Amino acid sequence: MLIMPKLKRDPIHGRWVIIATERGRRPSDFPVEVSRPSGGFCPLCEGNEDKTPPEVLAFRNNGTSPNTPGWSLRVVPNKFPALRIEGDLDRQGEGIYDRMNGIGAHEVVVETPSHDETLATLPAKAVENVLWAYRERILDLVRDRRLRYLLVFKNHGVAAGASLEHSHSQLIALPIIPTRVNEEIEGSRAYFQYKDRCVFCDIIRQEVKERSRVITENPSFVAIAPFAARFPFETWILPKTHHSHFEHMEPFEYQQAAQILSDTLQRINQVLHDPPYNYMLHTSSFSDVEKDYYHWHFEIIPKLTKVAGFEWGSGFYINPTPPEEAADYLRKGK
Amino acid sequence: MLIMPKLKRDPIHGRWVIIATERGRRPSDFPVEVSRPSGGFCPLCEGNEDKTPPEVLAFRNNGTSPNTPGWSLRVVPNKFPALRIEGDLDRQGEGIYDRMNGIGAHEVVVETPSHDETLATLPAKAVENVLWAYRERILDLVRDRRLRYLLVFKNHGVAAGASLEHSHSQLIALPIIPTRVNEEIEGSRAYFQYKDRCVFCDIIRQEVKERSRVITENPSFVAIAPFAARFPFETWILPKTHHSHFEHMEPFEYQQAAQILSDTLQRINQVLHDPPYNYMLHTSSFSDVEKDYYHWHFEIIPKLTKVAGFEWGSGFYINPTPPEEAADYLRKGK
Repeated sequence: MLIMPKLKRDPIHGRWVIIATERGRRPSDFPVEVSRPSGGFCPLCEGNEDKTPPEVLAFRNNGTSPNTPGWSLRVVPNKFPALRIEGDLDRQGEGIYDRMNGIGAHEVVVETPSHDETLATLPAKAVENVLWAYRERILDLVRDRRLRYLLVFKNHGVAAGASLEHSHSQLIALPIIPTRVNEEIEGSRAYFQYKDRCVFCDIIRQEVKERSRVITENPSFVAIAPFAARFPFETWILPKTHHSHFEHMEPFEYQQAAQILSDTLQRINQVLHDPPYNYMLHTSSFSDVEKDYYHWHFEIIPKLTKVAGFEWGSGFYINPTPPEEAADYLRKGK
Repeated sequence: MLIMPKLKRDPIHGRWVIIATERGRRPSDFPVEVSRPSGGFCPLCEGNEDKTPPEVLAFRNNGTSPNTPGWSLRVVPNKFPALRIEGDLDRQGEGIYDRMNGIGAHEVVVETPSHDETLATLPAKAVENVLWAYRERILDLVRDRRLRYLLVFKNHGVAAGASLEHSHSQLIALPIIPTRVNEEIEGSRAYFQYKDRCVFCDIIRQEVKERSRVITENPSFVAIAPFAARFPFETWILPKTHHSHFEHMEPFEYQQAAQILSDTLQRINQVLHDPPYNYMLHTSSFSDVEKDYYHWHFEIIPKLTKVAGFEWGSGFYINPTPPEEAADYLRKGK
């Protein structure tokens, strides 16, 4: 029996949570054991296509059939989804609380058929295909009128929350614009109202001029250590031309984005010895046309320190590595 | 040479970070090795008072001298502080960015002279002394006009960020009201403006009536699994009588707060087998008089799951354990 996940809203912060009981819930289910199939069975490897739900997108050799070998990239629904695509939102109150059904999409982008490659070792062309896959899934899911936002993210390494070793990223499409995204969009809007300039464009101008926090760049993108980095070696990748939506770029820009993403991950790998990391693609919400004030970007956070009570309690971060020093290491490291 | 920590502000989110280079900063310094002095040397144990900075508060046996044995609780400055108490804020711009010196207090509350006790095993009277120590430090630091907020927090266990095994909590006093605290205060204010009631008082009324998320209670406090719990077994402890400031309670209420904190931690310990956890004391900011709309409380988060890219990117949490089930386990467990 499928249990519908629930979305519940905190009445103080307005923050929503997903109560998804698919992955273990009882005290004895923690800590969750992570599958590290070194030599063992991997459901994402070529040949095991029947061990995942049927693919929703694949880049395949001519003449191969869906859900069989012969692919370079597959997108499949998550086998243990945090949200379900079937059903109605069924919004309702519960005294002072609010909740709705956990409607949404939760998909896995299998980035390579090979178990041993990562985004840092794949050729740039394969990384570009990953970005094209993100774009295709966004363009498909944006048509679902129940959904408002799509977050693409990657957990690499057990400490960063990966439950499978095989290189993959995930996307979750939500019926709500998440608080953290909303803060960023509203913060950018406030800056634009005050200055009539995009805050990200201003950041790029200042960073490219000053150089101290620039890690690498190409004609279309720049990778920087942000001025107020929360984490050691936190890195942002920003398009130099203003685009509010990831999916609105010109074709050559995906090639450039893949080049700098690959380059940046190689530097992080080399300098920090293949650390666990997360990355998140921050882009505009579904309902919006191109916006002057928001600017899509990648945020990459190597998982080097533990987030503890101070950070949870305050939203304030203590970072032991000045971003200027982090940029210097990453600039030289490759 | 002391290097002054820096406070830097993100121009998009308005979020501040502390760049504190005391604790290792180079790639080779990660992951930070944690001292687990099982049988080894512990600077917080009785007899090692000279291994910490001089105490700023201690509860001592009559006749014993500061910084010698004979205490039941000590508060000392953190040896590797994220902020420093000496100096001026020296606020300044840097192009589009803002920064100031890292002025503030960072102290360690050593909760017991014994290396083997924890808040869950100490007698309730000792736990009450910990709360009195929090109060005394708040009342002392509130007089520093440069400071605006004080966060008390506890990291228990290596996975929750503790770098010392000996039972302790910490406090950080900041020259800024942190974004996460501000969100909570502003969210509560918005609710009050709409309803003319404190949102926390409304939560308590509904929870105490419904019972399904109540873990334990006493005449002055209730411990609940919050409706929109972010984490499995997340627990909040709330005073039943409205108080915006932790330090404004009546003396008997500290005794009651200690009773329920001790009781709740014992339940978490028993049901989840001494898990790593964080707790945070959320109280009002320094400059404020008693407020109708905000309500101090403890938030306890057992560290059972990993925070990954989705949570970092969205501020949305996926919780596999419904709070009603968590409350049921904790209610029965003791």
